[in-house]
Amino acid sequence: MPIYTTPIFNINLTRITENYHLLARLSQPASAAGVVKDDAYGLGATQISQALYAAGCRHFFVAHGCEGEIVRQVAPDAEIFVLQGIGTDSQQSFARARLIPVICSLEMLRFWQQQPLDGIKPAIQVETGLNRLGFREADLELLSPTELQSFSYVLSHLSCADEQAHFMNARQLENFRHLKQRFFAHTPATLSASDGVFLGADFHFDLTRLGAAIYGINTAPYRENEMKNVLELKAPVLQVKPLAKGEFVGYSATFRAPQDMKIAIVSIGYGDGVPRSLSNRGKVIFYQHGVAHFCPILGRVSMDNIICDVSQLPQCMVGDFGYLICDDYTVDDVARDAGTIAYELISNLGKNPRFIRNYTA
Amino acid sequence: MPIYTTPIFNINLTRITENYHLLARLSQPASAAGVVKDDAYGLGATQISQALYAAGCRHFFVAHGCEGEIVRQVAPDAEIFVLQGIGTDSQQSFARARLIPVICSLEMLRFWQQQPLDGIKPAIQVETGLNRLGFREADLELLSPTELQSFSYVLSHLSCADEQAHFMNARQLENFRHLKQRFFAHTPATLSASDGVFLGADFHFDLTRLGAAIYGINTAPYRENEMKNVLELKAPVLQVKPLAKGEFVGYSATFRAPQDMKIAIVSIGYGDGVPRSLSNRGKVIFYQHGVAHFCPILGRVSMDNIICDVSQLPQCMVGDFGYLICDDYTVDDVARDAGTIAYELISNLGKNPRFIRNYTA
Repeated sequence: MPIYTTPIFNINLTRITENYHLLARLSQPASAAGVVKDDAYGLGATQISQALYAAGCRHFFVAHGCEGEIVRQVAPDAEIFVLQGIGTDSQQSFARARLIPVICSLEMLRFWQQQPLDGIKPAIQVETGLNRLGFREADLELLSPTELQSFSYVLSHLSCADEQAHFMNARQLENFRHLKQRFFAHTPATLSASDGVFLGADFHFDLTRLGAAIYGINTAPYRENEMKNVLELKAPVLQVKPLAKGEFVGYSATFRAPQDMKIAIVSIGYGDGVPRSLSNRGKVIFYQHGVAHFCPILGRVSMDNIICDVSQLPQCMVGDFGYLICDDYTVDDVARDAGTIAYELISNLGKNPRFIRNYTA
Repeated sequence: MPIYTTPIFNINLTRITENYHLLARLSQPASAAGVVKDDAYGLGATQISQALYAAGCRHFFVAHGCEGEIVRQVAPDAEIFVLQGIGTDSQQSFARARLIPVICSLEMLRFWQQQPLDGIKPAIQVETGLNRLGFREADLELLSPTELQSFSYVLSHLSCADEQAHFMNARQLENFRHLKQRFFAHTPATLSASDGVFLGADFHFDLTRLGAAIYGINTAPYRENEMKNVLELKAPVLQVKPLAKGEFVGYSATFRAPQDMKIAIVSIGYGDGVPRSLSNRGKVIFYQHGVAHFCPILGRVSMDNIICDVSQLPQCMVGDFGYLICDDYTVDDVARDAGTIAYELISNLGKNPRFIRNYTA
């Protein structure tokens, strides 16, 4: 009997590409950028940028300069935008990899003007209602016409685009149009991430920024997800045993068996990025004869192990694999059970160095 | 004016060593192992194993074989135990790095017996109440005397040791003593992790396993923390701006300003491992003239940014650093605000590749 101990994380590049194509078509005539910040939401910036580049993507967004350097290695002639902008601590990345800073404040603009990089035209972020990074109208009034014309793109970001009817969408669109018309009439513009794409052509401008949705997340949860699930996470069963009525399970003894049960100990835990908030709430999926069985997590998720109820599966045994993420239990489903969003889930999972990680082409 | 964009993560190896020494003294005459699984709870297995080795530590615990290989590079003559045991997928690590599997099931024992590694005497995990990995009494009855004597250590794990008065502590101790006496009278034994050390000498046996507490976590929360904080996480302010009464902040507009305020946008987010559950609950600390100011997080934590209320800090400006973890707001404090435990917090933070990471000796 083979014994396994290591979780396996499968990332489907074909489906990521299909999701990108679907959203890129929806975005037309706007161009469609790939958002690969945070190591492509933890899934691997190198592999995913490569796949998107092969799919025709020529605009990329990252958060930090160091991330841009990674993308540059696989996207030699792309425009790579850095959303957190440029600073003393990241300048060298911009020079080495010809990255485009998104200037987010007057102070950063002055910094750039004192030490600009040859041949790079920065973008500018304007504030339209998220109240995060960006210039307000009063800040823009301080810039000269020459300064205003020095940007390659004007960018803003929607706060509530995952709720189609939210009043903020119309308000931010109006604010963005106003700022663009007053200060950036001839500058290409980008407002929408994945969620904004579904709000319609008014929101697309010249470039959409596709991140979460290409990784399979439903960014328009008011409708059925049109994106394909791109992830599979499974972990081996290390032990199967009976649990007698009245016995406790896991740290702090938070689960007590209401009747005799059978439990499986699965070799994955929050040390792998599985949210500890799935304790007594999440599920592990086991397939038998092609049928998915949802087995409740019992007690606390611990750092390296999860205990689940396999009473319904007489044949479950050591060496079987339980699924933490699959087509039948997607990242959105897991995040819902964990009380968070799929963005945070995959961002934490993806950084795990101890997974066996496979990219299927 | 200098501009910064990158978070900085400082890990104090001196304090980790001091914490180890304190617990090692408490453990005497038992030996004290270092638990460096999950990349030393995300803080860097190489650097921390090296520091512990220099402090005299000669027993290490990891979860997976691949982690043991990393420790072996800096601990040439140490005993390195692998808690998830050995499997088809990890065998090579054990051979290469002379790792000691902790056998957790009959199936794994049979696997080991079919392909043992020369010169390695495995450990065995027994089940005393956590109902996670390990042999129960009925399983042990199936082993021959020769098999029972083939182990280098007998190990179990406490479920409720962070609550001094919990009935499970006495119950598990009794179960462990019983199994040891009946099956492993002459085998060295280990029962306690950091939290068990504080339960007293009865719980120490031959070896204690020091993890969480050496990283500064209070594993005995019923008393004041005697461990030193070992972490500092800070991130630069990218923008400071006024927020007018009635304006919204962040995704889904979950914060609305009750009066005119001043906000700072700090360059760190859940993409860096900061829990998104700190939304509208956590704090960012700013120091002015040596005084810590606790500035509430406003709205949702986003992937790369946190917005906080700096109304009380007229001098706060771009380029300042806000602290997410420091001596005044420790990993336990942050975890409490986030609704989780410090173990999960640091495990997610530590894997971030985009921090500037410093080890202070």
